Amino acid sequence: MDKFVNVAEIGPRDGFQSISCMMIPTETKLEVIEAIIDAGVSHLQCTSFVSPKAIAQMQDATEIVQTLLEKHPDLDLFALVPNFRGAQSAVAAGLKKVSSVISLSVSHNMNNVRRTHEQSFDELKRIMDTFPELHIELDVATAFGCPFEGEMTIPALVDFVGKAYDLGIRSFNICDTIGVAYPSQVSASFQALMAAYPDVHFSVHIHDTRNMGILNSLEAVRCGVDTVQTTLGGLGGCPFAPGASGNTATEDFVYLLEREGYETGIDQKKLLAAAKLEVEKIPGNYSGHHIHIDTEWPDPARCTPEGRA
Amino acid sequence: MDKFVNVAEIGPRDGFQSISCMMIPTETKLEVIEAIIDAGVSHLQCTSFVSPKAIAQMQDATEIVQTLLEKHPDLDLFALVPNFRGAQSAVAAGLKKVSSVISLSVSHNMNNVRRTHEQSFDELKRIMDTFPELHIELDVATAFGCPFEGEMTIPALVDFVGKAYDLGIRSFNICDTIGVAYPSQVSASFQALMAAYPDVHFSVHIHDTRNMGILNSLEAVRCGVDTVQTTLGGLGGCPFAPGASGNTATEDFVYLLEREGYETGIDQKKLLAAAKLEVEKIPGNYSGHHIHIDTEWPDPARCTPEGRA
Repeated sequence: MDKFVNVAEIGPRDGFQSISCMMIPTETKLEVIEAIIDAGVSHLQCTSFVSPKAIAQMQDATEIVQTLLEKHPDLDLFALVPNFRGAQSAVAAGLKKVSSVISLSVSHNMNNVRRTHEQSFDELKRIMDTFPELHIELDVATAFGCPFEGEMTIPALVDFVGKAYDLGIRSFNICDTIGVAYPSQVSASFQALMAAYPDVHFSVHIHDTRNMGILNSLEAVRCGVDTVQTTLGGLGGCPFAPGASGNTATEDFVYLLEREGYETGIDQKKLLAAAKLEVEKIPGNYSGHHIHIDTEWPDPARCTPEGRA
Repeated sequence: MDKFVNVAEIGPRDGFQSISCMMIPTETKLEVIEAIIDAGVSHLQCTSFVSPKAIAQMQDATEIVQTLLEKHPDLDLFALVPNFRGAQSAVAAGLKKVSSVISLSVSHNMNNVRRTHEQSFDELKRIMDTFPELHIELDVATAFGCPFEGEMTIPALVDFVGKAYDLGIRSFNICDTIGVAYPSQVSASFQALMAAYPDVHFSVHIHDTRNMGILNSLEAVRCGVDTVQTTLGGLGGCPFAPGASGNTATEDFVYLLEREGYETGIDQKKLLAAAKLEVEKIPGNYSGHHIHIDTEWPDPARCTPEGRA
């Protein structure tokens, strides 16, 4: 299955957390998530276990997780945990897998989780030691660039992954947190990482801030990355910058992959319907393109050569 | 200058023609165009010579052309002409170069210009015979896909270009009119075209309908295409589909090219300022991403590790 790509939906975390104008009802979140699962998505980051003071939108994390675990025991379900306390809550809710997060950029890590690299790696080790059965994927934030420090270097990225590798981490999600990666940087980064750690699983998470989300995501796939994180409708971005983009849009990326001859196991029509449902139910900042297309293509019935279409 | 890419701005034609809610004042059009030229853009499709009954927005074509020719005699300035009458008007206005257009898809050609292929090639020959000094670039519309007929085949594209080649055309602009091309199709198409017609100049024109504008445009550049048509701000799309995208956004594509190590001769800051000016002056459907970014990157001054950013 060389050409199979896992499109991992993370909108219920990275997308929903961008909505600050309203508390999305838990049943609305679950309705959208069910539509996503029904379309064939089998990898889902459904929430984050974070302080409600930091992100109130995620306060129903336990209910979301427990409802989904009960209905979909075979789903690859996971949540983001920013610290030990979050991991505790995730495990208590029944999760077997979490995303932990450390920024490659020291300044960004300090801004994001108020920790030095050393403190963050200590916290990661504490989680690993306390929950030895928990599958921990490490999100490497600002892996390509930091808002304060600028472009990151590939040797720094490889060294950073090595530190977590030495602790025992074998799953990494390489994140373009602020959407500044470019294709040749993405391919050089994954080539270096895969050469250095052949027994590691890598996924990729690209923000579409500068209109390169799909391009950089495909570049990673072309390097052999088999898992790409995306958000339905491209929901995300910053609530204070109305048009700023979130992640690569799931349905746009699946369309591209299928046209390029990859397999995703996802039903495109159902996925697009789920995206339109989400747009209808949850007012937010959507950057996806397919959600605006109302016509089938091709459509021979629209061919009326006698008149002007 | 292997790595130089000509980014040809066509927003004043393909972008402005999408605005139907208002007549853009000619002085506003010229103000935006001047900002684009000031940023270093040297290839510009500034209008089309089309019946005002078909597209009223283009009724100031002669004034636009004459003003620009006088102020910028060295600019590579051109306009779209759908037929012989348009070519007559363009030449009368003083233009030395035009874009003529025929759709690869017979049904689309009939819908767009109400002509069979044979009638369109006859019209093209009439223009060539009447104005032997005029530089005619042929826009091959629906080169990758047609709304009625579906995906086009590469042999059909190569044959079609051959017909115009036999008439004497040596400049072609290969257009993804409805935004359905995918990267491997783009590369296979240009490889076939360049192998068949090594003495022809090719440019590419990609609509961003399905979020693949930048990806497909870069794919063409990677194949050796040295000219890419784009619209400032990504202005365009259909007035009846509010979120549908126009062409690849000029400033987003220039940003990508520069990060990938290509040269464009364009000042990115001035170009982005021109895009923001256009957004401010002309309400329309903009799909560009950089127009939403208000901060410099990187910005060490924003690095405040003591608090939460």
